Amino acid sequence: MRMTVRIAVAGASGYAGGELLRLLLTHPEVEIGALTAGGNAGSRLGQHQPHLVPLADRVLTETTPAALADHDVVFLALPHGHSAELAAQLDERTVVIDCGADHRLTNPADWQRWYGGEHSGSWPYGLPELPLADGRTQRDLLRGSRRVAVPGCYPTVSSLALAPALREHLVRPEVVVVAVSGTSGAGKSLKPHLLGSEVMGSVSAYGVGGAHRHTPELAQNLAAAGGTPVSVSFTPVLAPMPRGILATCTAPLADGVDADAVRAAYQKTYADEPFVHLLPAGQWPTTAATLGGNALHLQVTVDADARRLVAVAAIDNLTKGTAGGAVQCMNLALGLPESTGLTTLGVAP
Amino acid sequence: MRMTVRIAVAGASGYAGGELLRLLLTHPEVEIGALTAGGNAGSRLGQHQPHLVPLADRVLTETTPAALADHDVVFLALPHGHSAELAAQLDERTVVIDCGADHRLTNPADWQRWYGGEHSGSWPYGLPELPLADGRTQRDLLRGSRRVAVPGCYPTVSSLALAPALREHLVRPEVVVVAVSGTSGAGKSLKPHLLGSEVMGSVSAYGVGGAHRHTPELAQNLAAAGGTPVSVSFTPVLAPMPRGILATCTAPLADGVDADAVRAAYQKTYADEPFVHLLPAGQWPTTAATLGGNALHLQVTVDADARRLVAVAAIDNLTKGTAGGAVQCMNLALGLPESTGLTTLGVAP
Amino acid sequence: MRMTVRIAVAGASGYAGGELLRLLLTHPEVEIGALTAGGNAGSRLGQHQPHLVPLADRVLTETTPAALADHDVVFLALPHGHSAELAAQLDERTVVIDCGADHRLTNPADWQRWYGGEHSGSWPYGLPELPLADGRTQRDLLRGSRRVAVPGCYPTVSSLALAPALREHLVRPEVVVVAVSGTSGAGKSLKPHLLGSEVMGSVSAYGVGGAHRHTPELAQNLAAAGGTPVSVSFTPVLAPMPRGILATCTAPLADGVDADAVRAAYQKTYADEPFVHLLPAGQWPTTAATLGGNALHLQVTVDADARRLVAVAAIDNLTKGTAGGAVQCMNLALGLPESTGLTTLGVAP
Amino acid sequence: MRMTVRIAVAGASGYAGGELLRLLLTHPEVEIGALTAGGNAGSRLGQHQPHLVPLADRVLTETTPAALADHDVVFLALPHGHSAELAAQLDERTVVIDCGADHRLTNPADWQRWYGGEHSGSWPYGLPELPLADGRTQRDLLRGSRRVAVPGCYPTVSSLALAPALREHLVRPEVVVVAVSGTSGAGKSLKPHLLGSEVMGSVSAYGVGGAHRHTPELAQNLAAAGGTPVSVSFTPVLAPMPRGILATCTAPLADGVDADAVRAAYQKTYADEPFVHLLPAGQWPTTAATLGGNALHLQVTVDADARRLVAVAAIDNLTKGTAGGAVQCMNLALGLPESTGLTTLGVAP
Repeated sequence: MRMTVRIAVAGASGYAGGELLRLLLTHPEVEIGALTAGGNAGSRLGQHQPHLVPLADRVLTETTPAALADHDVVFLALPHGHSAELAAQLDERTVVIDCGADHRLTNPADWQRWYGGEHSGSWPYGLPELPLADGRTQRDLLRGSRRVAVPGCYPTVSSLALAPALREHLVRPEVVVVAVSGTSGAGKSLKPHLLGSEVMGSVSAYGVGGAHRHTPELAQNLAAAGGTPVSVSFTPVLAPMPRGILATCTAPLADGVDADAVRAAYQKTYADEPFVHLLPAGQWPTTAATLGGNALHLQVTVDADARRLVAVAAIDNLTKGTAGGAVQCMNLALGLPESTGLTTLGVAP
Repeated sequence: MRMTVRIAVAGASGYAGGELLRLLLTHPEVEIGALTAGGNAGSRLGQHQPHLVPLADRVLTETTPAALADHDVVFLALPHGHSAELAAQLDERTVVIDCGADHRLTNPADWQRWYGGEHSGSWPYGLPELPLADGRTQRDLLRGSRRVAVPGCYPTVSSLALAPALREHLVRPEVVVVAVSGTSGAGKSLKPHLLGSEVMGSVSAYGVGGAHRHTPELAQNLAAAGGTPVSVSFTPVLAPMPRGILATCTAPLADGVDADAVRAAYQKTYADEPFVHLLPAGQWPTTAATLGGNALHLQVTVDADARRLVAVAAIDNLTKGTAGGAVQCMNLALGLPESTGLTTLGVAP
Repeated sequence: MRMTVRIAVAGASGYAGGELLRLLLTHPEVEIGALTAGGNAGSRLGQHQPHLVPLADRVLTETTPAALADHDVVFLALPHGHSAELAAQLDERTVVIDCGADHRLTNPADWQRWYGGEHSGSWPYGLPELPLADGRTQRDLLRGSRRVAVPGCYPTVSSLALAPALREHLVRPEVVVVAVSGTSGAGKSLKPHLLGSEVMGSVSAYGVGGAHRHTPELAQNLAAAGGTPVSVSFTPVLAPMPRGILATCTAPLADGVDADAVRAAYQKTYADEPFVHLLPAGQWPTTAATLGGNALHLQVTVDADARRLVAVAAIDNLTKGTAGGAVQCMNLALGLPESTGLTTLGVAP
Repeated sequence: MRMTVRIAVAGASGYAGGELLRLLLTHPEVEIGALTAGGNAGSRLGQHQPHLVPLADRVLTETTPAALADHDVVFLALPHGHSAELAAQLDERTVVIDCGADHRLTNPADWQRWYGGEHSGSWPYGLPELPLADGRTQRDLLRGSRRVAVPGCYPTVSSLALAPALREHLVRPEVVVVAVSGTSGAGKSLKPHLLGSEVMGSVSAYGVGGAHRHTPELAQNLAAAGGTPVSVSFTPVLAPMPRGILATCTAPLADGVDADAVRAAYQKTYADEPFVHLLPAGQWPTTAATLGGNALHLQVTVDADARRLVAVAAIDNLTKGTAGGAVQCMNLALGLPESTGLTTLGVAP
């Protein structure tokens, strides 16, 4: 038995929108419906996404509630602040998957501090693998949901890298995360520091000192895993590559915890996760191995001198970090097998 | 009705071998059998191809005829000079797809001049889309074949960029090709000039002056298309990226030929080709749009001042330029639909 | 005896302006005066050119004739069309070095066709090493000049790669040039295709079919070298690196010309040139070796099968291709030793 | 008054050796003497260092004590373990600057644990700017020294980023450093993971969990600055660029410390340092701005939520991180002005 799910993508000319379409084109149950855009409405998709050959001649339409109506699933790949109003005008039975930030934070005060303006309320948070303090995983909150807030790319990789340690109380709740990202995470924004000439051959930090908006989201996830507030020091770093995030995550070991205990906890937590790939001891993740796939590659060890746990995880920020995660959530919402249309295969070298 | 084709890959720890496996893992009719290697025999595949998660724990075995026996299809991804002897020991009914150079050149004198040693004979040349002077395409020579010589990456992209012009006599048979390639075309060879520190931030030419071994192969293809010998000036250029080739191909226009005639010829030639994507006028190929997909992106124009045709084509050297082309040939050899398990979708940005 | 030359740079926040300042800061006879800009006037230079530490706190002023007055030398690093009016308002005794295109083309019809609008007249063309048909070099026309038109980056590298062959009639005057460039040649323009995410991992052609504005400039130079009109097929290609151009230049050999004759001609032409580095036979240029230096690396050979000369040359587009060439011209204009303040040293790897 | 210092470089075909020569060629007091190598002895330098045009035809000789005798200064750019024996055979009055690790660690037990074998003793540590607990700087220990151990690239950047905070007791002595480096730090070693195809488009961590040999060196420096043992969690990360390191360094704030106190301490410490460039508040370092120059770019802030200091610093690993630091030490050893022949200018974009 097969179903056909008709989907729409709002923001189809951007990077997240393009990646959603790349994945959905090979999803066996999906039919591509409306493709909408803002300023690019009226132009051919092939002009903006030349890699999506089968859709090259599709013309982008304006992003409006009417254009998005009559679809089973609507993906929103829009700048933050644009999702809430649009979603409010979509049928309640439509599955709406928001790749933006509008509905991720549960605490309205957090929203106000980090994004400003009024909070539109939180939606079920779309990180299925996140282990929760009560023994469940976040996926239990996503099955059948009609609204999903897809996580940010940095919180996706950092939360999964640290959550097992927090849930099992292997570390003190004071984490330090330095995550190196490719440039597509910043979208197609025309900003001088994102020009190829500036980016190539250069690495730089930004949002330093706890200023990046993914910080409260990461703290929220780690608190959910550990059942206790977590202090988060997060520094994002821009690297000269289009895709990929490598997060180096450390935390002070709790007393008496050793490498074996740590490894056992990670193995247990992710034993059945199709998209979390705990590497054999001694092999460390590379972002290249995750390129274009929905896998998170993970390794963890103990620094016996500094008495810290060090977990390193890699994802493709556009796939597992955005569009792949979104498709995973769609599958859960629709009752499809969670891996449908997704792969762990990366494109390398 | 489905068939299950059991395949083996010799040279599974190299770049071509890895790409073959990436594609074959998603081929609906294929079951992965033996994975063999030379120096890397005995080690886990995951150590060499960390992006192939589903095969991470497979152990590489020695490349021997025995290891490759009992498979429906054997892919050889070996340095040149290693295929002939191995192939001779494989059952005649086995489909053998050689990604190396051993059986590409039809003229033994060419083989001796460019590679040295005795020629092992030529196999059907695996470039299905190549238009031939007699009105057929090369695919007509590949259906049901038990032996296929997969083209080199440079000849793949350059031949398809120029063949329509030669077959239709729109240009004089004196072509100039400058093709810019990513580094994976050179394989995993440990040579100083292939180190990341040397490659990044740098562009360089090599094999200049007609010294590259793909020159006679390109000449052979263009002669097959045009029905007349073709003078080929070919310069390969190394660029700082892992994958992709962009070939800029020019030739003097025949008298009276204009842009419309050129475009019409290309449209007609490739109208029904699933993997040749002639872009709308004014849009030029980028290698990024072909990354990881089996498509060739093509554009052609006329330089009215210099009276030359200019065709520009892009492929992923590992996919359409090697492993994707190989799978296409396997499909033809087995009587499967030619596109089975292949996609035109690229991974971008 | 030393002189102090007070210089101004108009367009100091752009890439050409930044490179001019980098070189002028180490020029022993120069004192940095006004730094002007358009939209960036009023901001610290350090914000736009963080690599120019000694000037970090200098504030950019508006680009006006008054701001540029009272300097010995004024460098214009502005978009084309902005130099002529400004230069007309500067003292005739001021040396004005224009890095833009306004005064490069000698034929007003060429200007009108390629740039549009009225031609502002041509200035002495700032490519000192260019060999001329009458046995002189272009430097003979630059000594003591008060106005200099700095060449485009592509014409710089391609002209010097081909001029000896044309002057010595070693080739027929029908050249094919494919030049691969880093992205800084396009300046800091905020265009989507120049974003890091688009550029990295990708190679693409543009201005194909003779559409690039450097085409007539190259033809003009080669005609000056050969004493006869030259047909030019020129294709620029964008590569994923910030700096550098590698030009692959070919032309049909004249009858009876062999490799020795070609090499001898190049050696003779450039024997005394401090910035043209003809490599030993068998070694081919890399752009990396020219990074940040004022050298052009050059190699030439003969393709005996295709009967074509192939010359490959590399420069740093911002140094020898723009700012270094400009400083060289300033030296000539002021009667300083031509190499003052310039180096052949590149920064590699 | 000028002196002429005759220098030799052992290991002239490697990256550190090449960078030494690039800097020494523009040093006003230096004359280049012997250039020696191991396996590359007998070949032209131009083959290995094509960017060093003025030395292209110099032939490398074997690295022996005799070849290095009769020079005022000998730079050793050799793998660790090769310096001690060689240095022992050089005249005591010769200044020997060792870019390798042999004489950096003061504690023989550290040497044995991290490098193995017998310790050759420590030399004055060549990081002039390092503030010491007793109020001096490390430069006070370097003036007139005949032997200098040049620091590792990671300890250079990380020590200077954290030392002011430790000396002023602004943080608790438990630091976490994640430093992202270009590939030239690994030298020209022919290892698969350093191939361009592997490196480009990929970021990866290595030496995780306190396993990198620069860890004890960093701990030693920070202890010297703070006057107390320091716990160091250090993770190096490889990024797709040839040069540059960006270190993100954090530590828990001591009670009552705020952003103003932190900034004041850094300003005071580095006010007179020619090569430490503390950026204006709000501007963050990029490695590109340091490329090819001897500057360290630094910014520091306070994460008020996580109660941590965050310092980010960038250097060129080959310049300030190796060869520039070495020249600085030579200047101190010889009694020359410390900045002679060095620049803060970077090459960007």
